[in-house]
Amino acid sequence: MKGTKPALYTSLSPALLHLYDVSRSIVVIIDVLRATSTIATVLFNGAKNIIPVDSVAECIRLGKQIEGITAGERDGHIAEGLVNGNSPFEYSKEFIGGKTLVLTTTNGTKLLHMALEKGAKGIITGSFPNLSAVCDYLVAAKKPVILGCAAWKDRVNIEDTLFAGAVISRVKAHFDINCDSSKMAEIMYNDAKDDMYEFMKSKNASHYLRLTKYGLEKDIRYCLSEDVANVLCMYEGGKLVKGNLPS
Amino acid sequence: MKGTKPALYTSLSPALLHLYDVSRSIVVIIDVLRATSTIATVLFNGAKNIIPVDSVAECIRLGKQIEGITAGERDGHIAEGLVNGNSPFEYSKEFIGGKTLVLTTTNGTKLLHMALEKGAKGIITGSFPNLSAVCDYLVAAKKPVILGCAAWKDRVNIEDTLFAGAVISRVKAHFDINCDSSKMAEIMYNDAKDDMYEFMKSKNASHYLRLTKYGLEKDIRYCLSEDVANVLCMYEGGKLVKGNLPS
Repeated sequence: MKGTKPALYTSLSPALLHLYDVSRSIVVIIDVLRATSTIATVLFNGAKNIIPVDSVAECIRLGKQIEGITAGERDGHIAEGLVNGNSPFEYSKEFIGGKTLVLTTTNGTKLLHMALEKGAKGIITGSFPNLSAVCDYLVAAKKPVILGCAAWKDRVNIEDTLFAGAVISRVKAHFDINCDSSKMAEIMYNDAKDDMYEFMKSKNASHYLRLTKYGLEKDIRYCLSEDVANVLCMYEGGKLVKGNLPS
Repeated sequence: MKGTKPALYTSLSPALLHLYDVSRSIVVIIDVLRATSTIATVLFNGAKNIIPVDSVAECIRLGKQIEGITAGERDGHIAEGLVNGNSPFEYSKEFIGGKTLVLTTTNGTKLLHMALEKGAKGIITGSFPNLSAVCDYLVAAKKPVILGCAAWKDRVNIEDTLFAGAVISRVKAHFDINCDSSKMAEIMYNDAKDDMYEFMKSKNASHYLRLTKYGLEKDIRYCLSEDVANVLCMYEGGKLVKGNLPS
């Protein structure tokens, strides 16, 4: 039955995405610290939708036009002209329920637009807070999958790789996986899964160092917590919306 | 003293090499199965030098011109028009001593020429058979290092990553390493080091599958053996030659 399963690949950096057959695949955008974790939280807490944009200027322009909440950071601080930051803790039900968030992030948005341009069959976002929703969707969809790590300015990072590994460890029976990057991701996840925060800390992971410099230990712990905002985040018609499993 | 150490980065694929400062660095070309393992063996067994070339046609042309031994494979067989293959077992002292080998490989040669074009401060090749020579050289040179995995048509592979991890585990006290790819490589190596062949087999590594299909288990075992052809392989003036440690 092996040949009848769809293929699954892991792209460890946006600079490697072109190696895979995007146009036949569902692409999972992975930007664990913190874009896709915050996206899951925002939709879990009842936002109407999220519009990801490339730049701060576009975020400001569109925010005004549609009366949405603008959000984005540069170098650990809310970007000038925007109202909110990238932390999931900024988006309670009371604050974000029913609203539209216009969000600018560097790495995640870039990868999402690359997947879109290459004609992906479907695009969802993935993070530990919505791990089960991602896995359930991929298993139900029965289509080829690319786990797309957003990385950091194209440099491979540990936490996005760990999330790819977490997905693989759960869905691998349903896919044909001849991809060393996927094997490596699963090996990493198996090493780390008992305490991912401690793993990131003990390895001096680059984004552990970057975010703790800004006092964001609490954000890191949350972004490594499984299923605390377990909602499917689908990209449809230019917006990220809460999705349903394929019927 | 941390700030005074040179930096070390790992480039998991030639498609990521541009992210690193090649012109200030020594680049280690890593193509474990089997190009750089064979290169170490050929120089260890007394070849005069090795000329790496991009194509079979160039290999034939140059081989005739300089009366060298031509070598290269495509799809697991000696390429048409060439005399030898990529297996380290083809290159005994008796056969290769004092001779010039003109070698064409797909992934390793491509990466070597990329590093050359980007003006690398130095280029050496690395493999488990010459692991200690690589480490001794890097520590003595006291320059920034890029561990360049040749990968497979730009796709990240396990065995080149493992070799990067082996180097890092030995030299890390001498370098400043803020690079998640390097951390991942070391984690992988620590998982695998007790029995790398079994590791490759149990993970169904893509090149384990590819080479065993051609009956090359013996080659894989050799290429994962540390220091069995422990010679420094330096690229100088278009040729790979046996090098000496910096004085």
